[in-house]
Amino acid sequence: MAAADTGRALERKRQILEGAARVFRRGGLHAAGMREIAGELDMHVGNLYYYFENKQELLAFCQEDALAGLLELADTVLAEPGTAIGKLERLIVGHIELLNEKTPGSLAHLEIEALDERWRERIQPGRDRYERVYRRLIRQGIAEGTLRDVDPHVATMAILGALNWTVKWFRAEGRRSAVEIGQEFATLLIQGLEPRPEGETRVD
Amino acid sequence: MAAADTGRALERKRQILEGAARVFRRGGLHAAGMREIAGELDMHVGNLYYYFENKQELLAFCQEDALAGLLELADTVLAEPGTAIGKLERLIVGHIELLNEKTPGSLAHLEIEALDERWRERIQPGRDRYERVYRRLIRQGIAEGTLRDVDPHVATMAILGALNWTVKWFRAEGRRSAVEIGQEFATLLIQGLEPRPEGETRVD
Repeated sequence: MAAADTGRALERKRQILEGAARVFRRGGLHAAGMREIAGELDMHVGNLYYYFENKQELLAFCQEDALAGLLELADTVLAEPGTAIGKLERLIVGHIELLNEKTPGSLAHLEIEALDERWRERIQPGRDRYERVYRRLIRQGIAEGTLRDVDPHVATMAILGALNWTVKWFRAEGRRSAVEIGQEFATLLIQGLEPRPEGETRVD
Repeated sequence: MAAADTGRALERKRQILEGAARVFRRGGLHAAGMREIAGELDMHVGNLYYYFENKQELLAFCQEDALAGLLELADTVLAEPGTAIGKLERLIVGHIELLNEKTPGSLAHLEIEALDERWRERIQPGRDRYERVYRRLIRQGIAEGTLRDVDPHVATMAILGALNWTVKWFRAEGRRSAVEIGQEFATLLIQGLEPRPEGETRVD
């Protein structure tokens, strides 16, 4: 698939995803057939099949595309200097920006269950690798004493849940940009992981 | 639908959801047809149609069932005495427990887009009401000075994203119970919303 794509085919596929994404938003990932997606793009359905052999391949492409962006973001952030907290902050903001403003098919990123086993096996390792980056940064923060002694897995899933869910409700025409939402999320989620000031206990 | 169900029919429907939930976990909400769900339950498909006219009605029942539980939880928590923070904590723990241990069809709660407009219109008001409870408690916490001056909508969506996403990864056979995960989430999310101690700034 993507490996064999030339730059132009890849660009055309991304354009197709923009149309598919509009159809997904209206009726979910599954109600939409290839015919409806082609219709949304004023494209002959045979032409759509030239780019994607079937709906599974289109959904898998959405996920590979989103994941490739996220892994590139993670590599960039990990290569930069900075503390664990600073890196988590850049990841959180970058993740929300990427899924909501740069990756039209990102609704599919929420549903790896929708893929056949063959596609799932191809995509799962990248998702696992991306999660490991969060766990590693959280562990690093705990070791540095800048984060509380949380369960890195549970904390990672709390963060990724909040981030991924933005795809369900963020609207480009809304009041706030994806980056602004990302910054607010980063503050909330990272502060939630920080050590409580000594002697302070919460009074409910 | 549910309104006309006797106690026994409602119980049988919930049992059906347990089978449907296993099928959903394997292949997502949509790959599963009525025939496969009936097969999972060793049930004749005609018998399944006696309880649910079609897949849409089954998915809608999952959502109504989950939502009814969440709204009951919200009503209980709001009626109890306590601070905004204490109530948020009980909601967070209860939400995770409910979706992951008490509501077999809760994977459907994540996909209102999967429903036809007719069903969506029936379910959306309850979801809106549930979200309003969070916004109201956050606003109350801000007014009391126990929470930072956050955007109540953005904070609500961060919380609900983290909570709803647990359905994707929580496993009953895992190391930690839903309540334990819920308590860890409550600490993280509420601490993230609290005012920063005076004079403290984060150093990244």
